Amino acid sequence: MALVVQKYGGTSVGTIERIRNVARRVARTYDEGNDVIVVVSAMAGETNKLVALANEMCEFPSEREYDVLVSTGEQVTISLLAMCLQSMGYKAKSYCGFQIPIISDSAFSKARIEKIEDKKIREDLKNGTIIVVAGFQGIDREGNITTFGRGGSDTSAVAVAAGLKADVCEIFTDVDGIYTTDPRIVPEASKMDKVSYDEMLEMASLGSKVLQIRSVEFAKKYGVVVHVRSSFNDNPGTLVMKEDADMEAVLVSGITYNKDEAKISVLRVPDKPGIASQIFSPLSHANIAVDMIIQNVSHEGFTDLTFTVPKTDFKKAVKIVEETSKDVGAGGVQSDENIAKVSIVGVGMRSHSGVASKMFQTLAQEGINIHMISTSEIKISCVIDLKYSELAVRVLHEAFGLAKKDVKAE
Amino acid sequence: MALVVQKYGGTSVGTIERIRNVARRVARTYDEGNDVIVVVSAMAGETNKLVALANEMCEFPSEREYDVLVSTGEQVTISLLAMCLQSMGYKAKSYCGFQIPIISDSAFSKARIEKIEDKKIREDLKNGTIIVVAGFQGIDREGNITTFGRGGSDTSAVAVAAGLKADVCEIFTDVDGIYTTDPRIVPEASKMDKVSYDEMLEMASLGSKVLQIRSVEFAKKYGVVVHVRSSFNDNPGTLVMKEDADMEAVLVSGITYNKDEAKISVLRVPDKPGIASQIFSPLSHANIAVDMIIQNVSHEGFTDLTFTVPKTDFKKAVKIVEETSKDVGAGGVQSDENIAKVSIVGVGMRSHSGVASKMFQTLAQEGINIHMISTSEIKISCVIDLKYSELAVRVLHEAFGLAKKDVKAE
Repeated sequence: MALVVQKYGGTSVGTIERIRNVARRVARTYDEGNDVIVVVSAMAGETNKLVALANEMCEFPSEREYDVLVSTGEQVTISLLAMCLQSMGYKAKSYCGFQIPIISDSAFSKARIEKIEDKKIREDLKNGTIIVVAGFQGIDREGNITTFGRGGSDTSAVAVAAGLKADVCEIFTDVDGIYTTDPRIVPEASKMDKVSYDEMLEMASLGSKVLQIRSVEFAKKYGVVVHVRSSFNDNPGTLVMKEDADMEAVLVSGITYNKDEAKISVLRVPDKPGIASQIFSPLSHANIAVDMIIQNVSHEGFTDLTFTVPKTDFKKAVKIVEETSKDVGAGGVQSDENIAKVSIVGVGMRSHSGVASKMFQTLAQEGINIHMISTSEIKISCVIDLKYSELAVRVLHEAFGLAKKDVKAE
Repeated sequence: MALVVQKYGGTSVGTIERIRNVARRVARTYDEGNDVIVVVSAMAGETNKLVALANEMCEFPSEREYDVLVSTGEQVTISLLAMCLQSMGYKAKSYCGFQIPIISDSAFSKARIEKIEDKKIREDLKNGTIIVVAGFQGIDREGNITTFGRGGSDTSAVAVAAGLKADVCEIFTDVDGIYTTDPRIVPEASKMDKVSYDEMLEMASLGSKVLQIRSVEFAKKYGVVVHVRSSFNDNPGTLVMKEDADMEAVLVSGITYNKDEAKISVLRVPDKPGIASQIFSPLSHANIAVDMIIQNVSHEGFTDLTFTVPKTDFKKAVKIVEETSKDVGAGGVQSDENIAKVSIVGVGMRSHSGVASKMFQTLAQEGINIHMISTSEIKISCVIDLKYSELAVRVLHEAFGLAKKDVKAE
């Protein structure tokens, strides 16, 4: 007998009929002899409707009240799912964030979970009750309702699993698991059986949208095994877990890409202490998140500084940088919106050499020029022309042997 | 400077634009130098939508989960109203039932308020914050969400006014106040300036649907002055308050009627101890609420027993009574669905004689036969033929001088 936490997203609970399906799946897990805690999101579309109401009411809704509003979506789902389980003859009980309580800080609409009380839930589990928890929401130490940002139900589920020392946290979603790359670009992309927390963190932040990145940080911190799987079938999905020997044996686990950034270069910057701070502080004040930053060795006291920003902030960023550039006596500013970032990720890189050169060579063979390179322990990213992004993903996927085994040959 | 509690029902907050109107009205009351607590219902139609979801999910939804579900309606309204007040430049803060907390018993969907904490709200009021409270909902001592039944926001408002010793509790509604009778039947019906708690209780239970009856009981118990007034204009409405000399000077305050009951008579019942209990116990077991009961003096050891039941339970009741009638050896059962109950209400009756005979005489003059009569200290009710109900209300309204003063004559 195990303690299983299951999380179902908005699509999986999008209609009464789908909630019934979820109830059947939960009941089966319970009938197999497990204690079950279910974490659910708002019914698909509901959160957007609530956000639309807030936006209709005023331009800048208070974040505290915004959380009071949007947290009602999950509250509706938990009551319906608990009703359904009860009508099937099971003991079930819903919990809002404040009832557990899931205690968070007071950063409304992006709060961080600080503590989960397990006392009440443990008592209910002991008498055979299935627990239905509202994802996405918590309560701060002053009793205000908080929410955890888009995808926050993932984090709720992992946090509940950590707080109650569950054996596994199953995240049910509309895909079969985590793929080696985007199957829309590479039809041969294969589902990974296992992926390490660190790889998942790199892939999530690079554009794979299966799991909220905070939930992976949480899982890593508390060693929660996360099982990402489909709510439409019983196939095993992908285990996100501590890295093991199997994972290290693989050179590269996945290929990701990001087309949402743009590149800005400040040319002939006088290479003296404090210059980077002078350039980046105004961007930070304007709340523009700078991603890759490249500064190379200087020539005759000057260097070039290149970095990427979100495309949505591109125009604002260029304007700011052009002004700063004059102030610091740089030679000029170049910018380019037509870029993409392609990355290879894998814990195997740590113990293998030649991975980077293989990546560069693969791109070169296709005539793809590399604008920027940045590396971490388990990731290599290249900025290339936007138009080559799909091609780059395909050839890298092929080069690192990530494609499905040829089924016909079996 | 006063502490004012205002309550706005579902129609008054039915759209974003109407919530804006409510915000303007609240702000004006605040600008006039008052501390303001606003209690709101769910946006019109929302509670019905949530109830429909529950009914779609299962036939007999658990009452605990039902309350979790329907309480989200008020939570949406409080956040939107607080946002709106903030966008107008006011300090505002929303409170769900659990956040105050409004502590109730655990009778889900019809819970009774037991206690209201005033500490947090007092602190907020002190720093000039307008308080926005979710009506209809509370929390029991185990931390479960509870609701107070249809119209429960009235009771929330009165309870908050009692708990914080407010100077007045204003109930905003779609009528101008409480009328001497139904203006759809008697166009000359006039708005009462004041009505006593007891009169209001008699009128509410007899069919006037302006205030939840529990809220009036609550107001009476704690001496809260309730001002029922229109949310569409600034006219003074009706004060529901402790009775005073003015009220006692009036013979009759209002005329009410009820067409939702039916009459059953058990004829020639042997008049011996325990017989009434034998007849009414089976009805009570079937959850049928018996209203008026008339038993007259007996003749030769036999008596007739007549009572009314809700029309919705009529057929079931007749079937039960026919069986009991045989068991007790009664002479037979007569029943009549085509009846109405017409009542006159007024604290002035206590100190005036001749009120009843004036009522009977007025009805007789119109050829209206009286089937049953029952009286209390401040009310006289007659059961008559259904077809005469409007006529009876009109002539009684006229006879007791309740019509508006002739405006043209001024």
